[in-house]
Amino acid sequence: MAISSLDDLRAQLKKLPTADDASRAKANDREPQLTKPPGSLGQLEEIAAWVSTWQRQYPPRLSRPCARVFAGNHGVVVRGVSAYPAEVTQQMVYGFEAGTAAINQICKTFDIELQVIPIDLEEPTADFTTAPALSVEEFVSAFNLGMAAVPSDADLICLGEMGIGNTTSAAAICHALYGGDAAEWTGQGTGVVGEAFDIKVQVVADGVKHHRADITDGIDVLRCLGGRELVAIGGAIVAARQNAVPVMIDGFISTAAAATLEATQPGALDHCLIAHASAEKGHKKVLDALNKTALLDLGMRLGEASGAALAVGIVKAAINCHNDMATFAEAGVTGKED
Amino acid sequence: MAISSLDDLRAQLKKLPTADDASRAKANDREPQLTKPPGSLGQLEEIAAWVSTWQRQYPPRLSRPCARVFAGNHGVVVRGVSAYPAEVTQQMVYGFEAGTAAINQICKTFDIELQVIPIDLEEPTADFTTAPALSVEEFVSAFNLGMAAVPSDADLICLGEMGIGNTTSAAAICHALYGGDAAEWTGQGTGVVGEAFDIKVQVVADGVKHHRADITDGIDVLRCLGGRELVAIGGAIVAARQNAVPVMIDGFISTAAAATLEATQPGALDHCLIAHASAEKGHKKVLDALNKTALLDLGMRLGEASGAALAVGIVKAAINCHNDMATFAEAGVTGKED
Repeated sequence: MAISSLDDLRAQLKKLPTADDASRAKANDREPQLTKPPGSLGQLEEIAAWVSTWQRQYPPRLSRPCARVFAGNHGVVVRGVSAYPAEVTQQMVYGFEAGTAAINQICKTFDIELQVIPIDLEEPTADFTTAPALSVEEFVSAFNLGMAAVPSDADLICLGEMGIGNTTSAAAICHALYGGDAAEWTGQGTGVVGEAFDIKVQVVADGVKHHRADITDGIDVLRCLGGRELVAIGGAIVAARQNAVPVMIDGFISTAAAATLEATQPGALDHCLIAHASAEKGHKKVLDALNKTALLDLGMRLGEASGAALAVGIVKAAINCHNDMATFAEAGVTGKED
Repeated sequence: MAISSLDDLRAQLKKLPTADDASRAKANDREPQLTKPPGSLGQLEEIAAWVSTWQRQYPPRLSRPCARVFAGNHGVVVRGVSAYPAEVTQQMVYGFEAGTAAINQICKTFDIELQVIPIDLEEPTADFTTAPALSVEEFVSAFNLGMAAVPSDADLICLGEMGIGNTTSAAAICHALYGGDAAEWTGQGTGVVGEAFDIKVQVVADGVKHHRADITDGIDVLRCLGGRELVAIGGAIVAARQNAVPVMIDGFISTAAAATLEATQPGALDHCLIAHASAEKGHKKVLDALNKTALLDLGMRLGEASGAALAVGIVKAAINCHNDMATFAEAGVTGKED
């Protein structure tokens, strides 16, 4: 699976597989038969049906959950928008590879297969306040890396990122997609405060202003203001849909990348669940814009797919309940009195 | 561990072990050294420190998480307060023992050792609108069963319940502890609507009115309006504190039982984390009264310790991150620029 051009991507977005209504119907049929008051498992009930719908199979299964963390560097860091220097992106990638970062521990906790995909870390994107972050060729290359990262036999994929400077990129994407003031979308990222924060807001505003005239859709937004890791997340989301793999999206940055697809083609994220409501300022606003709610809200703002991986435990429990609980008939339990 | 009388329980509550500040200090010392922006793991950071504090050891560990589900029957069901008949309590216990209920699947998902403890199901409590639900002897017996159910080598315990009619009991407990109108505390339980719901509100009001003059503290509330499974939860909470086992409390009913201890002895629940904000009406109100927030909010209202067990995955991930992530120094990652 790959795209050959931006227009090929636009064409593929128009032809995404739709929901598997037959699998959903089977899930909806079983749920009220299980030995519990109707609705008493709350969101777990919908999660099981959602997984089945987008795995295009019934019953849902979760034997090979995967996580993919894409890393990229951002030219815009020369403007002083991060509390950490750009070399930390590579250092954190070493940590992922050595198994010592947060995402490694969370993946171990829930038996999630983790792969880290650094993308041209030695070549930061262009400073988006003066030029498109990525050329068309760079965009297509990063997008295809993301598409190739989705195993066709995965049954769930968690997507996340690492990239010093990328909350600035995410804020600019949201500001371009949804308008408002730059300050509404700009958060403290890794801990940017005071004057540096004012600069960050200005960079977000400048970036959107610079590109506004050239932007026709979400794909343009992603190329002009994104980063290689954000583009790769877009590619992974599209490939997952084509491969019948439900997606768990991490926090603010991953959601911003995903939002460019939804802006281009409404419904493009129907196979995606937002795992965690980030403490990063813009996340709840972009969730509102997408009409999505996050499964967890634990005050995290780390990225690395950490929120997505954490939510896999909930999905596992939901599927195990749906598949393995007895029905009222099987258990000989008296049903509800009407 | 056991209590010999209500006054012995009151005395034991006054002598509960306090927080292990030394273990907390060690956790607080390590946390900012880990390779992530300060605070970026949100509540996971506090959870790891909390577990360490109440396990009274550092580092925190999670090799033997347990769940205990207590079941009891309620005389008040003769008043028509539940959508299911009383025999369902026993039928659900058979399901727990056969491994086919929701709690079984959730415990399997997270490797939690589950034990189900039915308490005199053939002897429902008295109808609390006309008499104390339990005699002193019955209370002491159920409380001691709860105390005995906590293994001294467990490193976390999830507490939950099953008992047709026990949302009525929980609502009456909260109404007695915190006042207000009976209707504010009364929810739909397993699905009580219409006229049956009006009866349920009236039963809650009648129960509290009947006992108000005789109630001196939370222990009296628990005996007069509770049930055997709620009293056992109280016993398990006290024994867990004495044995250095942190507690995960399930939804509305378990929290109501726990609240009677806090009302009797402030601080009695400091070693308890509320796992899930139940969809049952009174839960968020009692959490406010206890000045606690729930970790998860997934719209569940099942009981059976299901919310508590579901949250164990989060606790595992929190502990694994705290213990196994590298520090900035170990990983050679550049720290935050000041």
